[in-house]
Formats: sequence, structure tokens, C-alpha cells
Amino acid sequence: MEINKTRLQQHFEAMSLIGKIGETGTNRPAHSTEEKKAFELTAQWMQDAGMKTHIDSFGNLIGRLEGKNNSLPVLMMGSHLDSQPYGGRFDGVAGVLCAVEVVKTLYDNNIMPERSIEIISFADEEGWRFNKGLFGSRGILGKLEEGELQRKDKDGITREQALKNFGCDITKFKQDEYKQNSIYCFLELHIEQGPVLDIAHKPIGVVSGISGPLWATLKLKGMAGHAGSVPMALRKDALVGAAEIIIALNEIATQIPGAPTVGTVGTLNIFPASRNIIPEEVTLTIDLRDIDLERRHKYEKQFKEKIEATAKKHGLTYSLTEDTNSEPRYCANWIKEIIHTQCKQLNIDAPELMSGPFHDSLPLSYATDYGMIFIRSKDGISHNPLEYSSYEDLALGTTVLLRTVTEILKR
Amino acid sequence: MEINKTRLQQHFEAMSLIGKIGETGTNRPAHSTEEKKAFELTAQWMQDAGMKTHIDSFGNLIGRLEGKNNSLPVLMMGSHLDSQPYGGRFDGVAGVLCAVEVVKTLYDNNIMPERSIEIISFADEEGWRFNKGLFGSRGILGKLEEGELQRKDKDGITREQALKNFGCDITKFKQDEYKQNSIYCFLELHIEQGPVLDIAHKPIGVVSGISGPLWATLKLKGMAGHAGSVPMALRKDALVGAAEIIIALNEIATQIPGAPTVGTVGTLNIFPASRNIIPEEVTLTIDLRDIDLERRHKYEKQFKEKIEATAKKHGLTYSLTEDTNSEPRYCANWIKEIIHTQCKQLNIDAPELMSGPFHDSLPLSYATDYGMIFIRSKDGISHNPLEYSSYEDLALGTTVLLRTVTEILKR
Repeated sequence: MEINKTRLQQHFEAMSLIGKIGETGTNRPAHSTEEKKAFELTAQWMQDAGMKTHIDSFGNLIGRLEGKNNSLPVLMMGSHLDSQPYGGRFDGVAGVLCAVEVVKTLYDNNIMPERSIEIISFADEEGWRFNKGLFGSRGILGKLEEGELQRKDKDGITREQALKNFGCDITKFKQDEYKQNSIYCFLELHIEQGPVLDIAHKPIGVVSGISGPLWATLKLKGMAGHAGSVPMALRKDALVGAAEIIIALNEIATQIPGAPTVGTVGTLNIFPASRNIIPEEVTLTIDLRDIDLERRHKYEKQFKEKIEATAKKHGLTYSLTEDTNSEPRYCANWIKEIIHTQCKQLNIDAPELMSGPFHDSLPLSYATDYGMIFIRSKDGISHNPLEYSSYEDLALGTTVLLRTVTEILKR
Repeated sequence: MEINKTRLQQHFEAMSLIGKIGETGTNRPAHSTEEKKAFELTAQWMQDAGMKTHIDSFGNLIGRLEGKNNSLPVLMMGSHLDSQPYGGRFDGVAGVLCAVEVVKTLYDNNIMPERSIEIISFADEEGWRFNKGLFGSRGILGKLEEGELQRKDKDGITREQALKNFGCDITKFKQDEYKQNSIYCFLELHIEQGPVLDIAHKPIGVVSGISGPLWATLKLKGMAGHAGSVPMALRKDALVGAAEIIIALNEIATQIPGAPTVGTVGTLNIFPASRNIIPEEVTLTIDLRDIDLERRHKYEKQFKEKIEATAKKHGLTYSLTEDTNSEPRYCANWIKEIIHTQCKQLNIDAPELMSGPFHDSLPLSYATDYGMIFIRSKDGISHNPLEYSSYEDLALGTTVLLRTVTEILKR
């Protein structure tokens, strides 16, 4: 039983045209018409693989291959088809299309599993549109937070409105949630999005766990004034304070050379944003991750002290709000072992590695056992049109996934 | 002969309602319907003062009190009615309304001057909408630069389109320019926008000159990547580089404690601006001013070296473009002397001070002699809704302006 490499490549190529930017880029926002088109195309492929499809009230695309015994917990696979605003062709897409190829291969070989298989393209994994991600995967597990539907995108559209525009009935959230123990396990194939496999010349990696991100928003407030007339000594420049904090985060994350800690400020907005006005208010986002939670807590404390000191120094007030705070979540040993065994049988030397980025697996990890397969990313580039994984590597990963699914179905 | 304090205050109050934001703020963009309303109201007051009014092709409102001998160069006064996006009620407005009060007082006292008097509310002094200011005052002197009409505002509207929407015929620029030697002198009353007079408890200041601003735009380019997976050591984070440059500018401008040098980064934009993507590109504006041009040149050199070193350190490329580069321009001694004499006669102790902000006087200084009267700004606050100058101070300044005009008309 073998997957169809040519078909898999064709699916990636067809998907890359939806929301295409430049030569190799993708912009497919959550709950957008582009995502809808991606869903329609994928639903067609799912149906060709014998699956029934629907879009649930969270905006997830769900394909289901009915098993002989539909009272058994489902084997779930998936990832997401939404992209970064300036993203690539593989992030998220791989986990959906490779899973579809697995089910199509089973279906073409007349394999009718005992338990049902579901593939989900989760809504808004990326989180940039409403500054909060993993929406669909948290949604099906009843983990949405208060006020989430009122978050607005940059055009002032709320999540609620975006879901309605997408055709979702938000009154049906409750009935679309998955019951406890209804998911047997979750498998996600994903590009690494980092340079570890590429540097080691390994096509496939077995994920050991996801390091938890701390996401926070910092708002600094100083005092506006004319850039030409307020003497430097009298200023309360929120941007100068922000600059010191950006550098501090960088220094905190690099204090142990070679450690996997990462700290990033990805967005920064100034009010009133005029070239001859001293910035009165600066809002910036903080992303801090570490495999070692204790160390991350220590760094968070250092960072908060630095914010306090910087605010004092520049006469600023501030508010720091936590948007997301996840602990590291480890993959199930039994799934890792199956993946390792399949790799060995295929003569693939697959190292085990942590995931810096989070994935839909993160919320799923609280509901079921999960496993992840990483595909090598050229130069570690991701969230960028230059993101690249070869079709050979993707096909190899799909073969590992197919064999892993086959093993799990035997249990 | 005395000005009418009550009428002056009423004019300020009426003007403050146009483009009003919050309790005391103003948002009156250049070439906007709000500015048009401000022009219509002011034109009415100008006409009540015996002036003929029109809006020229640059979008300037011009009022003219015809003199007995209209072949003589005109005595010109003015400032601007456009405001910052989050501005106050006095910046620019004072120079127009106090001048109108002066002409109204002359007119009510049946004083028909030999030379004509003109008051101009210059278009787009502030410069934030198209990132280039002093449009109208440069326009009438034939000092517009190539490509200026193609500059876009944040909504993508070009200056050309904005002028057309305002009712201006851009083919008439040439005929609306002022001929050499057609302006006898230029007088501008303005709020200080800084804390010097307020700290010294002086209502009025005599301006010695305007320190020249250097405006530049810096674009830093690094490499985007996933905030969770690209190890710190491999990053090319454009925002970390930008932060170091912001701090460097601050340090350069403050290296001589108490010196009047000021350096500001007022705007900063990130691409792609997602909280979990390493910033690939950062564009920021630089504003550097000094009364001492030689020192400013030295600091500019230091700053450029710092940009070069920072780019190298973080693996960034960059481009630095100069948007405006003005030298300090000094007020005419003979006008300063007249203003000082009037202040003495009124028992006002008016200190002489430089202007950090530039004004419409700056381009005018290349065409004619100019003088400026500063009005105390409470706490030095400007470009902010909290900007405040008392009606007593404004009336006092208007009296000084009236007496200065009367003296000049004798020449």
C-alpha cells in the first residue's frame, strides 16, 4: 500500500493558488473567502477519499470516514489551512493535505477501519487576525474564553461578525463540541518551521512536545508633545521606553548562549504616530517561549522587573496583559514509539525534537494523546513566502503518517 | 486704538468647534472638509475686516486689505488652520485669528494703509498627512519639489487628488506664485509649543530664529521567520535593530546636558506585523533639530555611523532617505527691534528665544524679512489636546502684533 506522490504534489500546487501572493507566498486569513475556497477544494478531495464533510459552527472544516463501529472514539488528524498574512505554502497545509492523502490511500485500498477517522482543518490557528489563535481547536474542546467573540481585527470586524460572514451559526457552539473520551488520539504532521532538521540533513523528525508560549500585550503611556520644542530632559517618550524593553527581551532570551529560549516583539503601534510628535502611547506584543517552564518563569520575572524599571526611568505608566500562557505539552510515548518504529523500518534516521511554535495539537493535548511528525524546512524559514519543504520530504512524511495510522488502527 | 478681546476669544471658541475631538482637542487635516469649513468661517471674519478673500491653487486661504498704493510690496501675516491629528486649539490658529483681529481693528478705526496687507492661512503646515509639511508656504514661493503631488496619505489618496477634492486647480500653481520682492515682510504670531516662557512666567517672547529640522526616513530590512522556532542566534530582527537606533538617537541628542538639541522617532511601522513573526522590515521617521547647525551636522554623522554599525551587527540592510533638511533661519533684526520696543512700551518683559518647531515663516524667510511673536504655552504642551494658551496672553500678543504692524506701516 503506497501513497500517490504525484497526486499529493498536485494538491499542494492547487492549494498554493488560493490567496497566492508573489511567486511563492500565501495570504489566507482566518474566516475569509480565501479560506472558504481552500475548504471547498479540500472538501472535494476528502469526498474523493470516501469522507463526509461539513463546516462546523467554529469555522472548522471536518471530513469523516465512517468506521465499522461508530461508537468507538475517532482517530483524528489535521492542522489548518489559514495562513500568515505574508506566509508560505506549507505551514498548516501539510497537516491537512498529507492526512487527506493517507485516507485516500486507505480508501483506494478498500480498507474500512473499525473506528472512524476524522480530518479537521482547524479555524484560525495562526491567530494574527484577532490576536488570539487556535480558535477552532480550542472551540471543539469547549475552551473558548469570555469575550473572545468580541475581539476585533484591524478593520474593526469582530470575530462574531467574521464567523457569521463565513456562514457559521454561533448559537451551535455547544452542540459542536467533542465529548470527553470521544477522540482516541490526534496526529499532526507539520513543517518544522525551524532549522534543526535542515542543519542535521534529516527529512523527518519525531516531535517530543510543544514548548509553551507566553503571549502578552504591553501598553506604555507617556506624554505627547512637539518634537521640536520639548527639551529632551522633560520628555516622557513612550517609544524610547519601548525600545529599551525590546532590547531587554532580546538580552533576556539570549543570556544562555545556545539555549532554545526565544523572545520576540512582532507588532508595535504608536499613538499618535506623527513624525513631529513625541510618541504618547506605544502598544507592543511579547512572545516568550522555552522548553523549560521553570526557566521561562524566571525570565518572565526578569522581564517584568525591566518593564517596571524602564517605565520609572522614563516617567511612563504601563499595563501588561497576558493573552496566552501555555505550559509545555509532551507527546504520548506510545505514539512516538510507533512513529520511531515506522521510521526505522523505512530506514529513516528521525531525530526527536521539541516544537518551538505551537500547533492545533496543543489544545488537543488536553483532551487526548497526541503525536506529531515534523518535515524539514529549508533554512528553517517559515511564516514567510520563502518557506519551503520538498515534495520528496512531504511524501516521505505522508508514508510515515500512513504507516502510523495503520498501526494505530490495529489497536 | 485697541483690539477687541471678547471678539478675539469668540473667534477662537468658534474655530475650536471645527474638527473638535474630545473636550479640547482638534483634528483638522490638510485639504479636508474640516479645513474648508475653517476657511469659510475665517473668510467671513476677513470680509468683516474689509478684506477680499479667495482660496488659491495650493489650498491657501488668502485675505487682502487693499492699500492706497497697490504697487507696493505687501505686508503679509499668517499661519495655518490645519492641525495635528490629535492636536490642540491654538497651534497655527493663533497666527491667523490674531492677525484678522489686527486688521479688523485697523479697519474699524478707518485706517487705510499705504501698502496692502495680506493674511494667509497656509495649506498643510503640519505635514503629517503626506509626510511633508509647509506645503502652501513653499507653494507660493515656487519651492515645491518634484513628485510632491504623488505623495500619498495613509488611505492612498495622493496630494494631487486631495487638492482636486478641495477644489484646487493644480494647473494654476505658476500664476499663484508670489513674484520676487512682492512681499515687504512676514509676521507670524504663534504659540511657543515649548515650556521656556511658562517656566520663566513670561506671556510673550520675541523669536530670534527657527532651528532647522532634519527629517529622514530609515528603512531596515532583516528576515521574517517564526517567532517560536528560529533560534535567537540565527535571527535578523529588524525591530531589535530599530530599537537600538531609537536609543542611539536619544543618546546622541542628550550628550550635552541642557543643550537645545532634540531628536525624535515619531512613527514606526513593521512588516509583516504579526505577533509570532520576527519583524522583517521596519520603517521609522527621524526628526533631529538644533540651533547650532554645525553641531547638528556632527550629530547626524554620529547617527549615520550608528545605523551602519547596528545594521551590520544584526545582519540588516537599510536605506536612509532625507525628507527635509533645513538650516536655522534668523529673524530680521529690524523687526525684532520693533517688537521689543512695543513690548517695552506695554511694560512686557519679553525674552528672546529660538523656535524648535518650524513654521510657515521658515520658507518665507528665504523670500523676505520675517519676525515672530511667541505666546506662552501652559506646561509647554502642544500637538496635544491639552495644548493651552490663555485668552489674556493671546490678547496681549495681538496688541503687540497690532502695534508692530502700525510701526511697519509707517516705514
